[in-house]
Amino acid sequence: MRVNYKKELEEAARNMILVHKPHTLIRMILRSIVRKVKVEHAGILLYEKSRDSYIVTITRGKVGTKIPPGLVRLDARSPIIRFFTQKECGSLLDDGALILDDLNAALKNMESLAGREDHEKLLLATKFQMKSFDTVVAVPSFYHDDLLGVLTMGEKVNKKPFKREEIDFFVALANDVAMALRNAFLFEGLQMEIERNKKLFLETTKALSAAIDAKDHYTRGHTMRVTDYSLAIAKTMHDESDEKPAAKFYEDLYVASLLHDIGKIGIPESILNKNGSLTDEERKKINEHAIIGAMILEPIRDLDGVIMGVKYHHEHYDGKGYPEGLSGDRIPFIAAIISVADSYDAMISDRPYRRAMTREQAILELERCSGSQFNPQIVKAAVSLYRKGQL
Amino acid sequence: MRVNYKKELEEAARNMILVHKPHTLIRMILRSIVRKVKVEHAGILLYEKSRDSYIVTITRGKVGTKIPPGLVRLDARSPIIRFFTQKECGSLLDDGALILDDLNAALKNMESLAGREDHEKLLLATKFQMKSFDTVVAVPSFYHDDLLGVLTMGEKVNKKPFKREEIDFFVALANDVAMALRNAFLFEGLQMEIERNKKLFLETTKALSAAIDAKDHYTRGHTMRVTDYSLAIAKTMHDESDEKPAAKFYEDLYVASLLHDIGKIGIPESILNKNGSLTDEERKKINEHAIIGAMILEPIRDLDGVIMGVKYHHEHYDGKGYPEGLSGDRIPFIAAIISVADSYDAMISDRPYRRAMTREQAILELERCSGSQFNPQIVKAAVSLYRKGQL
Repeated sequence: MRVNYKKELEEAARNMILVHKPHTLIRMILRSIVRKVKVEHAGILLYEKSRDSYIVTITRGKVGTKIPPGLVRLDARSPIIRFFTQKECGSLLDDGALILDDLNAALKNMESLAGREDHEKLLLATKFQMKSFDTVVAVPSFYHDDLLGVLTMGEKVNKKPFKREEIDFFVALANDVAMALRNAFLFEGLQMEIERNKKLFLETTKALSAAIDAKDHYTRGHTMRVTDYSLAIAKTMHDESDEKPAAKFYEDLYVASLLHDIGKIGIPESILNKNGSLTDEERKKINEHAIIGAMILEPIRDLDGVIMGVKYHHEHYDGKGYPEGLSGDRIPFIAAIISVADSYDAMISDRPYRRAMTREQAILELERCSGSQFNPQIVKAAVSLYRKGQL
Repeated sequence: MRVNYKKELEEAARNMILVHKPHTLIRMILRSIVRKVKVEHAGILLYEKSRDSYIVTITRGKVGTKIPPGLVRLDARSPIIRFFTQKECGSLLDDGALILDDLNAALKNMESLAGREDHEKLLLATKFQMKSFDTVVAVPSFYHDDLLGVLTMGEKVNKKPFKREEIDFFVALANDVAMALRNAFLFEGLQMEIERNKKLFLETTKALSAAIDAKDHYTRGHTMRVTDYSLAIAKTMHDESDEKPAAKFYEDLYVASLLHDIGKIGIPESILNKNGSLTDEERKKINEHAIIGAMILEPIRDLDGVIMGVKYHHEHYDGKGYPEGLSGDRIPFIAAIISVADSYDAMISDRPYRRAMTREQAILELERCSGSQFNPQIVKAAVSLYRKGQL
């Protein structure tokens, strides 16, 4: 049966476009070479930036004939690599492919090599390197001037020489490999940029919230603890439920927990750090921190969920909290979680006017206020975490 | 001359892979159809999400015969669109292509339509719609079950019917278009995510810095003004130089300017807001804000450049500043710019112990301290901005 190279190529190109992991495509390409052109083995040397070397990454073909992946590592000064990267050798390529028979012929043609000892040395070394890999055709994958990889093919199973259309097929596939690698690098780069930016946002928020937290003498470390408790409670609730929240929910909860007291930046230190009980006026002033926090973040469109958490983390389940007196399920879930985490940490921390409760006492207090101050489901999750020794 | 469809396809596929703007590829594909297959005109209806419609976006061919781009808008209920999205019509497709002649034949074959009035109506409406566009072949571009677009072809210039390989060529290209669109959407999505995250980081930093700024009664708005001045000075310097800094420099300068006084969060309000002159002890305490600011941001790896700006924005060009007494070019450039912007804004703002200077006076003061407190090049840029009425 004649191989329909056109169809093969179309398929390869089409598959490649959505393959972000180029290794999947390269595996397909090598399998297709081995099966359709019936070669003993085919493999690829892929450039690895971190080691500045070309590694035999994927091979296909009969065990025993093919090179085991990972074993062979060629640095940029290896003969085969230099052969492809030196302009001088270009004339020896057959439409982009290096064919062992052509190399042998050139070496026999002493005239063409006269006085070019270095060149002859390179050709000889390349020949030996090809032989050591049982390779009779090698095709480079270039992107502009960068050699990204080299396709290596063993002999045909029927030992006949390769036909023109088979060589063309290899060259086209080597180009496809270059494009797929380049495409995957682009995707990878964009995805790394996304991660980098997200990390930058989260770390900066954390650093600034920790700095603000450090101002309030009596709550030092409070922000990070509330963040840990909130996330643990949310995770427990979702582990026990069928609904899985989006990653966005956890990210919002993380940021809202970090920033829940950001509004305290608008409250005078003299009130925040007062040694002794507060007047009604001072208490009212402190309660404004929820609204002030929401106002600070209000211009940031992507923080809608976070703002809900900051603004309503002092609402009570029975409607007796502040700033709006929301009750029950009208309190945003994110705020109801922070409320429990925040109160729990407050109870187990020393205050100027009282000693810290034990964790057991604080859990009993959460249970006592379940349904009045706190959402019962969230208290249940906190209690279950405590019983497992995780709160 | 016979068209080498294999080569055409390879080229199209290869070009597509790195084309993030699918319109460029589609334009190439349509041009190639018009030139190689010699059709009167070819065009594409592309799905536009915001309008939930298919728009004739790009057309190629003789003026007068081709549909002007943008003029035609088909909603999802249009006959041609319904034809491709209804399973029932699938049997009328020739390897994925809708050919006007086949449609006419089906309509003449009354038997096959017996009792299927709705179906007959749709076929008739599709036929009229194709005729109104002078279209004799239409090929859908699907990605999974989503119809992303429809390629439309006019008659061949020689009026002969299309050959099998020509129809195959159209179908292959329509698939390529689908993949290119899908690929471009992926890239676009990733790029939007990057923008979104970067904006979130910058806006959150800005909001938190503004909140911290608002604490310090005498500097309200100072942070945003310093940020504006720093960026304006940097821009002027670079406009006058051949070296263009990376976007990263401006981003670092923006963030460092926003956060240059972040360390003040560690200084007691009683000192920051003191009415009257400071003791040496208090002055020393305030000077710590540069180091404290750097410490707050230290854990964030990507803020290296920013931290330099925060830490050294009180160094003097002659080495008499703090915290380290660096001099000349050993002071990071980013910090030297903030130093000038910061001092300029301080001079033109009221303080509890003195009235604001005029801008003219402040500029004279910058010039007086050029080479001692300030980097002369930066002062020069500030003066030039002031003379243009931009500072």
